Amino acid sequence: MSFPCIDKLASRTQKLDSGPEPSYDNIVTGYELFEHKQPFLLDHGGILPHVTVAYETWGQLNAAKDNCILIHTGLSASSHAKSQPKNEKPGWWEDFIGPGCPIDTNKFFVVCTNVIGGCYGSTGPSAIDPADNERYATRFPILTIFDMVRAQFLLLDHLGIEKLHASIGSSMGGMQSIAAASLYPDRVNRLVSISACARSHPYSIALRHTQRQVLMADPNWNKGFYYKGIPPHIGMKLAREIATISYRSGPEWELRFGRKRAQEDQSPALCPDFLIETYLDHQGERFCLQYDANSLLYISKAMDMFDMSASSVQRLEQQRQKNQIKVDDILAKQDEKQREQEQQQKDANKKDDRPSLTTLSATDPATQDLIEGMKKIKMPTLVLGIQTDLLFPVWQQKEIAECLRASGNKKVTYYELDAMFGHDTFLIDRVSVGGAIKGHLESKI
Amino acid sequence: MSFPCIDKLASRTQKLDSGPEPSYDNIVTGYELFEHKQPFLLDHGGILPHVTVAYETWGQLNAAKDNCILIHTGLSASSHAKSQPKNEKPGWWEDFIGPGCPIDTNKFFVVCTNVIGGCYGSTGPSAIDPADNERYATRFPILTIFDMVRAQFLLLDHLGIEKLHASIGSSMGGMQSIAAASLYPDRVNRLVSISACARSHPYSIALRHTQRQVLMADPNWNKGFYYKGIPPHIGMKLAREIATISYRSGPEWELRFGRKRAQEDQSPALCPDFLIETYLDHQGERFCLQYDANSLLYISKAMDMFDMSASSVQRLEQQRQKNQIKVDDILAKQDEKQREQEQQQKDANKKDDRPSLTTLSATDPATQDLIEGMKKIKMPTLVLGIQTDLLFPVWQQKEIAECLRASGNKKVTYYELDAMFGHDTFLIDRVSVGGAIKGHLESKI
Repeated sequence: MSFPCIDKLASRTQKLDSGPEPSYDNIVTGYELFEHKQPFLLDHGGILPHVTVAYETWGQLNAAKDNCILIHTGLSASSHAKSQPKNEKPGWWEDFIGPGCPIDTNKFFVVCTNVIGGCYGSTGPSAIDPADNERYATRFPILTIFDMVRAQFLLLDHLGIEKLHASIGSSMGGMQSIAAASLYPDRVNRLVSISACARSHPYSIALRHTQRQVLMADPNWNKGFYYKGIPPHIGMKLAREIATISYRSGPEWELRFGRKRAQEDQSPALCPDFLIETYLDHQGERFCLQYDANSLLYISKAMDMFDMSASSVQRLEQQRQKNQIKVDDILAKQDEKQREQEQQQKDANKKDDRPSLTTLSATDPATQDLIEGMKKIKMPTLVLGIQTDLLFPVWQQKEIAECLRASGNKKVTYYELDAMFGHDTFLIDRVSVGGAIKGHLESKI
Repeated sequence: MSFPCIDKLASRTQKLDSGPEPSYDNIVTGYELFEHKQPFLLDHGGILPHVTVAYETWGQLNAAKDNCILIHTGLSASSHAKSQPKNEKPGWWEDFIGPGCPIDTNKFFVVCTNVIGGCYGSTGPSAIDPADNERYATRFPILTIFDMVRAQFLLLDHLGIEKLHASIGSSMGGMQSIAAASLYPDRVNRLVSISACARSHPYSIALRHTQRQVLMADPNWNKGFYYKGIPPHIGMKLAREIATISYRSGPEWELRFGRKRAQEDQSPALCPDFLIETYLDHQGERFCLQYDANSLLYISKAMDMFDMSASSVQRLEQQRQKNQIKVDDILAKQDEKQREQEQQQKDANKKDDRPSLTTLSATDPATQDLIEGMKKIKMPTLVLGIQTDLLFPVWQQKEIAECLRASGNKKVTYYELDAMFGHDTFLIDRVSVGGAIKGHLESKI
């Protein structure tokens, strides 16, 4: 029996062995860079000496600076949501953004960033650690969805934008969108969360776990220190194939591939044989050198850890307060008195923040915890779920909407779509998904 | 950051490198062996010089020899469905079989085999090829679910059993059960199919594809020739972790693991961290040296190819007829005339077999194809599906039942269970699954 799929992997390994070091700089181009030259404290105690955020914009910021929409990305996406003069390639949400589009650039100033932890211009594991001028690799600190959002708001500060017309995101972008609304309730006027969740459930953690495991098991991953050698292209390919399964749905594949084989007249083979297999293989091939393996690990882990429950959010806050001291030591310039005052202010705020919600103790305490964790999110909110989504199933969408309502948000719109593309519907169904977004963004509220 | 999960893999590789060749002979013991010493033709043209079938039995065959129940196994199971004097370890269906149990050994003589292609006593890729006294490895021919069933019926011939009281199976065992009822309609009195399908759908193929790919990407797999070296334990572990996700369900994990971490007070890590991750890791660890990697590949592939559609079944039949000549040449003793007569008989049967079902052409041709493919299955049939099964979803169970009904089977019972264990429910829920089986086996029909 022959194994062309295995031979293909070996020949790519050979080619990479003789080629230059991998680089992601030329995969996405034409973005702007915002440099934050101060220490940036992460939720789990890591400190980045400084932070770079890559971003792109579309449309014009108005004089009142109140027409900005921040778009958050999914795991592996770049800031390139839409084509623009410096990069004319179509973006990942090309048809959703533009004049007259669901996100109307005649009306709105649109910003999209590459998240920190990523590899398309923002600081991530493939960036240079100024301490020794080597790439961070897995010396990069663990980061959270909240950390990504904090970096984005530093950019908004830099752009002079105090308030967002809306924070919008799908998948991990929806997590960021919710996190932004909760971290900065006074700076987000409207919230859109599509195919996201309020806390990652174990099935989605399991799916990401296997992706990380196949990637880390690739000997070329080398505990993250592969930048001077062969990148773990085999592990990346396999991880992408698993991910693709979770991104799409059974009904779609039933119609699209059914039981068709790639070549009907050939003998059955252990290498890709059915059309669905060659499709998955192709998805893996296309991705395996387009994205940094360590970025995948760190950001996928951040998704696992996402949890809006009050207990979880408060634990992170306490951790930050404790670790803030480290940053202070680095800066060695902060007035001790002022910090104490700030601390007192925080404590006072906390007391204000705890209304009568815990009186609903008759129901599940975990749900109560989540309701309390989301209580700062009072702005008009659109929650959109896809019935065929296996990764972020509709019960998780319903959970977001119901927790917001239970915590006192009177302006929650909840839509469930029967689209058949599963989790990826937000990338594909411009009419249904785009229509809901447009309606939410442009309605008088 | 430390990576204990990667260190663990490396240390097992090292240990295996210095240890003896792997063997599956002592993992399952106490079975009987049936040796079929003639060439055995497979659906796709391969010929095994002879075939061994490992089997175990429980209960007593009655004088009329009409109380036999054949139990078919899932992918990686052995013949050890239940403890017995020669192997007192609990079997994989321990509580389902026994005196007074759902499959009552006071009433029935129960047989279970290790499928051919397997590694627990039956002929499979890890068996010795008599041509050169080396293990088959990937020189083993592609095999189908029908081939497995044919080998089982050779065993029944050997045991003098003409008619089965029932053919029972879950998951891949359900595929075999359906295949048995269709290949030998006059030898199967009752049929039970649990969490199976009439044809594999692309989503399940995709899930098995990724398992095969991670396994074959393990350098130790070595295109199947690992028997003298280190077995691909890393690939097997990863494959099992992916499989485990498809075997269980979201609701169960939500209750069982939720968002609990293995050690709440430790810093987040890229190695297993959440409890669901350590669970998956453990499942992979436990399995990685318990089952032959090539068996997994071949049997998983046989599942992908399973399709009861008339067009598919007929294609295999025609292939068999063509390849039968090869077997005849090997035997060099068959009377040409007699073969022609048999052929004519087959053709005549075929004409009889095609009733007026194709007149239902108003509906989907693929469904018509499937209805026609299953038209020999007229015995009382129980189809059981689990609503939380992601691998063999209930729409596939409904498809089996509806196709049987549409093809004229008047005795189809269809149950859908709301159990929360997903695909694996058949291994766990003795009360609901066992009760349905008992009712079907013991009712007057």
